[in-house]
Amino acid sequence: MQVIRSIAELRAWRRSAGPVAFVPTMGNLHEGHLALVAEARRQATSVVVSIFVNRLQFGQGEDFDAYPRTFDSDCAKLEAAGVDVLFFPDERELYPRVRQDFNVEPPHIQDELCGAFRPGHFRGVATVVTKLFNIVQPDVACFGKKDYQQLHVIRAMVDDLNMPVTIVPVDTGRAEDGLALSSRNGYLSPAERSEASRLYRVLSGIRTALLAGDSDYASLEKAASRELEQHGWRVDYVEVRQADTLEVAHAGEPRLVVLAAARLGRTRLIDNIEVYR
Amino acid sequence: MQVIRSIAELRAWRRSAGPVAFVPTMGNLHEGHLALVAEARRQATSVVVSIFVNRLQFGQGEDFDAYPRTFDSDCAKLEAAGVDVLFFPDERELYPRVRQDFNVEPPHIQDELCGAFRPGHFRGVATVVTKLFNIVQPDVACFGKKDYQQLHVIRAMVDDLNMPVTIVPVDTGRAEDGLALSSRNGYLSPAERSEASRLYRVLSGIRTALLAGDSDYASLEKAASRELEQHGWRVDYVEVRQADTLEVAHAGEPRLVVLAAARLGRTRLIDNIEVYR
Repeated sequence: MQVIRSIAELRAWRRSAGPVAFVPTMGNLHEGHLALVAEARRQATSVVVSIFVNRLQFGQGEDFDAYPRTFDSDCAKLEAAGVDVLFFPDERELYPRVRQDFNVEPPHIQDELCGAFRPGHFRGVATVVTKLFNIVQPDVACFGKKDYQQLHVIRAMVDDLNMPVTIVPVDTGRAEDGLALSSRNGYLSPAERSEASRLYRVLSGIRTALLAGDSDYASLEKAASRELEQHGWRVDYVEVRQADTLEVAHAGEPRLVVLAAARLGRTRLIDNIEVYR
Repeated sequence: MQVIRSIAELRAWRRSAGPVAFVPTMGNLHEGHLALVAEARRQATSVVVSIFVNRLQFGQGEDFDAYPRTFDSDCAKLEAAGVDVLFFPDERELYPRVRQDFNVEPPHIQDELCGAFRPGHFRGVATVVTKLFNIVQPDVACFGKKDYQQLHVIRAMVDDLNMPVTIVPVDTGRAEDGLALSSRNGYLSPAERSEASRLYRVLSGIRTALLAGDSDYASLEKAASRELEQHGWRVDYVEVRQADTLEVAHAGEPRLVVLAAARLGRTRLIDNIEVYR
């Protein structure tokens, strides 16, 4: 595996590479990321993974500084997973003028769900993904369904700006108790970790009710929030939405997704579950 | 010359084409455009020209509907100029949902100079050029210096978003009396056409003064505006700026550009002249 830190060197490598599948990450890799890499290997002859903790998508008071940086163990995992190139630029390489002047501005969905609690987050994601796509020029890029709204924003952006990349979604990796794999799980105390799997159980409960024909989304959302709050969570949202557009769902909608974000102590966790009726 | 109207067909052609130079236009082609095409032919083995009157970059009350569409004569000129592909999408092809959801948002320069008089114009330009670059995937793209602020915005965007395209600027084509070639010259009455060359003469006068060491930009700008207004123009701006950044110029600045926009009757004309001291 080559570790490439400069855009110029990556472009030089790219010129002679064949079809490329790309997995952008912020590092601190877990089995969820490795499932993305495995899918990428199925999609193309060369796989590029990037590790870049993107300041632009963190808000004030969020965990940019605390975000875990584990380069050596990430490297070993990617090497073992058969990755061809690890792109590992520093901030000066991606933001040489410190500020980013041109931004890719997503539509109103950027202010809903997680966007309502993380202003500017999806603009930062859309902009850095655009930059990385322009640098890596992949044929395919793999994104996890765990960040469902992010996946939606990126698919819509690729479509709307005619980017020459195919986006491949990959199912969420989960611990045995159902907790979605996330770098932020590492922030949890043992007691919080044991409580954390409730988020998935609550979403699964809504799924069961929806499959049984319940279409009173508001009551299901409210009951789920109440259960989480009774167990010490601070809930940002629990929402039933249309799976394909992330628009508000109306009764009878056949393809749904239930999304949630909630905080345990200082850790913000997100999860979601698709429900196709 | 192939005329291609669909994105899918253009992408299919692109896969087997070698290096591509691209000239995006709004049609109604004149010698200025053909100089861009000639430069494009020097830059790469294949040349793609697009014709698309981009609604997104016209403001309310501007000349989107009146903008001259002259497809047949444009085709003949491009064929004669040795163009390989004319990309001629309709609005449904580039804006299938009518509205554009994701926009490329330029920094503050989009609100200055022409941007102050055409709100949203440079956002519309940046967004459609991003779309066209993603569709055509050119190695090189040629833009005229006549639209100096547009050239600046596009170069800055390509740099800031790491787009894999080299931007090649091409000198402004001019009529014998100095008037910059522009599709909008066709709106001028004979009397206006004869007056129109004053814009270039006024800019040339500022250039002469700057080269002679005059650094009182404000007085030069004011005198130029006054002269134009005395001859029936309504002046949007005459400004001396830094050539490379388009920021406000301070006395002693070695690389300058003088830019102007002014209206003769219902026609808005722009021009500029570089001054390297």
